[in-house]
Amino acid sequence: MREKDFISIIKSTLDSEYIGDDCAYLKDLGIVVTQDNLVEDVHFLRNSITPFQLGYKSVMVNISDVCASGAAIKYLTVGLSVPDNVDGNFIKEFYEGAKTACGGFAEIVGGDVTSSDKIFVSVCAIGKTQGCKISSRKNAKTGYKVVVSGVHGSSSAGLKLILNGKKEPENLIKAHLMPKAQVEFCRQIAQNVSVDYAMMDTSDGLMDALSTIANESGVLLEINFDKIPYDDAIKQFDDWQNLILFGGEDYGIIAVVPESLDCGETVIGRVKDGLGVDLILNGKVLHYSKKDVEEKIFNHFKKD
Amino acid sequence: MREKDFISIIKSTLDSEYIGDDCAYLKDLGIVVTQDNLVEDVHFLRNSITPFQLGYKSVMVNISDVCASGAAIKYLTVGLSVPDNVDGNFIKEFYEGAKTACGGFAEIVGGDVTSSDKIFVSVCAIGKTQGCKISSRKNAKTGYKVVVSGVHGSSSAGLKLILNGKKEPENLIKAHLMPKAQVEFCRQIAQNVSVDYAMMDTSDGLMDALSTIANESGVLLEINFDKIPYDDAIKQFDDWQNLILFGGEDYGIIAVVPESLDCGETVIGRVKDGLGVDLILNGKVLHYSKKDVEEKIFNHFKKD
Repeated sequence: MREKDFISIIKSTLDSEYIGDDCAYLKDLGIVVTQDNLVEDVHFLRNSITPFQLGYKSVMVNISDVCASGAAIKYLTVGLSVPDNVDGNFIKEFYEGAKTACGGFAEIVGGDVTSSDKIFVSVCAIGKTQGCKISSRKNAKTGYKVVVSGVHGSSSAGLKLILNGKKEPENLIKAHLMPKAQVEFCRQIAQNVSVDYAMMDTSDGLMDALSTIANESGVLLEINFDKIPYDDAIKQFDDWQNLILFGGEDYGIIAVVPESLDCGETVIGRVKDGLGVDLILNGKVLHYSKKDVEEKIFNHFKKD
Repeated sequence: MREKDFISIIKSTLDSEYIGDDCAYLKDLGIVVTQDNLVEDVHFLRNSITPFQLGYKSVMVNISDVCASGAAIKYLTVGLSVPDNVDGNFIKEFYEGAKTACGGFAEIVGGDVTSSDKIFVSVCAIGKTQGCKISSRKNAKTGYKVVVSGVHGSSSAGLKLILNGKKEPENLIKAHLMPKAQVEFCRQIAQNVSVDYAMMDTSDGLMDALSTIANESGVLLEINFDKIPYDDAIKQFDDWQNLILFGGEDYGIIAVVPESLDCGETVIGRVKDGLGVDLILNGKVLHYSKKDVEEKIFNHFKKD
C-alpha cells in the first residue's frame, strides 16, 4: 500500500486536476497520456520472461490503460535501461515484442536507452480522443450496470506456475507473459456511450478495479461472482476464487455504463446506493469496504 | 558508444520515420514528445544530489529537449521507482523539485510510482507546436550561422568538484545539480524562423551536438573556440578546454539558422561545404570527423 500513500503525497504536492485516473486527459490537445514503469525483480524476473515477451508486455500494459480511458491508442515512447551484459540481440528481440504489441494500430516513436544495474522499462502511451467520451473512475452512477471483458485470475495463476518451474497449462502461463489489451471492447463502449461512464483495466486485480470505481464514485457495486469469466484450469489452485478476485495483471476491463447501452458483453453486476462492493458468492453477500480490499490485496501479495 | 549501437538496432527493428531527433514530431496531434531515463549510479549518485534536485533535473532535461525542438513545453509525466528505504519526505521533495522545474509554464499530469532496488526516474514530456517550425538535426545548410545559448563546460566541472567532495565554486556545482533549460532562447528562434533549421541541446556535450548536426545534415561546421561562452572559474582545471567541448549536461542550445535571422545571440561559427567540425583553437584549425568526436567522448568518459 506504500504506492497508494506516495500517490496521495504526489497529488497534494502537485495540486493537479489531472492525477487520479490511469490516463491524464489533456483536453486542449485531444489526447490522453499514461506511463508505467516495469522493474526487474519487482514486476518481472529476467529468467522467467524472454526479451520479446518483456517488450510486448511493457507496451501492452500501457495500451490497456489508454484503451480503458476510451481513447484510441496511437503513439508510444519506450525508455529502456539495461545492464552491461545485455547485448544487441536482447535489444532487437525486446523491440520486436514491443512492435508486436502495437498490433498495427499504434507506433513507437521514440524513447531512451541507457545503462543500469537491473532492467528498467518505462513506457509512455498517447491516445487520441477522436471525439469519444473519456471515462473516469469517478463516473459510476446508481442504476448503471457493471460489465466485464476478458478472463480473470489467469495471469496470477500463470505467475504461480512459472515460479514453481511449470510450463503448463499453457493458457495460464501465456496470460501472464503475453496479456492482451481489450482494445475492441473498449472501442465499442467508447464509441457508443453518450453519457459519463467509468472504465478501468484490472491490472491490479478485479476487486481493486471494482473497489476503486465504487469508492471514487461514491456508490455500491453489487457483483455476482458466478458471472465473472475465468478459465476452468484455474481450479487446480486451492485459492482459485482469490486469484480471480485479487490476482493482478489480467488486463481485463471493467466498465460501468447505463443499462441501455448495448455492448454485447458479460454483465456481472449493478450499481446501487451505498459504498464499496457487495460480492454475491455461494449464495451469501460479502461486503468489501475500501479498507477490506486494500488489506486483502496486501495479504495476498505478502503470502506470495 | 553502446547506446548509439543500440539506437541503430532499435531504428532498424522499428523501421520508424520518427526516431532520430531527441523529440518525435507527431504532426497529426500538433505535438512533440520526448522521454529520458535517469538511473542511480549511472546518471547520478544518491548521496550527491538531494531529492529536490533530482526531481528538478529529471524534469528540466526533458523540458530542454522539447524547447530545442522549437515546441512550447506543456505537459510531463513522471515515472519514479524507489527502494524500500525511501520515505514520504523524499517523494514530497522530489515532486517539489519537479514542479519547480516546470516554472509555471508546464504541468506534471501523471506517471507512475513503484518499488525498485535503485532509484530510477523516467520522464516523458509533451510540447505543443503552436504553428512554429519544428527543428531537425538534419536541417543545417551551407551559409547558415551557428549560434549558441548558455555557458559550456560548467556542469562537468561541477561534477568533478562534487566527486572530489568540494562545495565551490558554487556556480559550477549549481550548473551540474540545477541546470536551466534555454526556454526563452528556443522560443525566440522558433517564433522567428520561417525556413528549415537545426536546433539541439548540449546534453551530451557541445561537440557532440555540433558533430551530430554536421554529420546528420551532411555539412561542415566551422567553429571559433574563442566565441564559446564559458565561466572563467572553469580554468582551474587543466583540461578546461576539453570540459567546454566534451563535457555534457550543460543543457545549452546550438542553433543553426539563416544568417538573416536576428536572434541577438552569440554566433560561434558558420556552415560550409564539407563534413564534420572544423574547430579554430589557438590560431589552428582542428578537424573532427564523426569518429574523432565519438572516440574523444568515449575517452573523456573513460578517464573520469
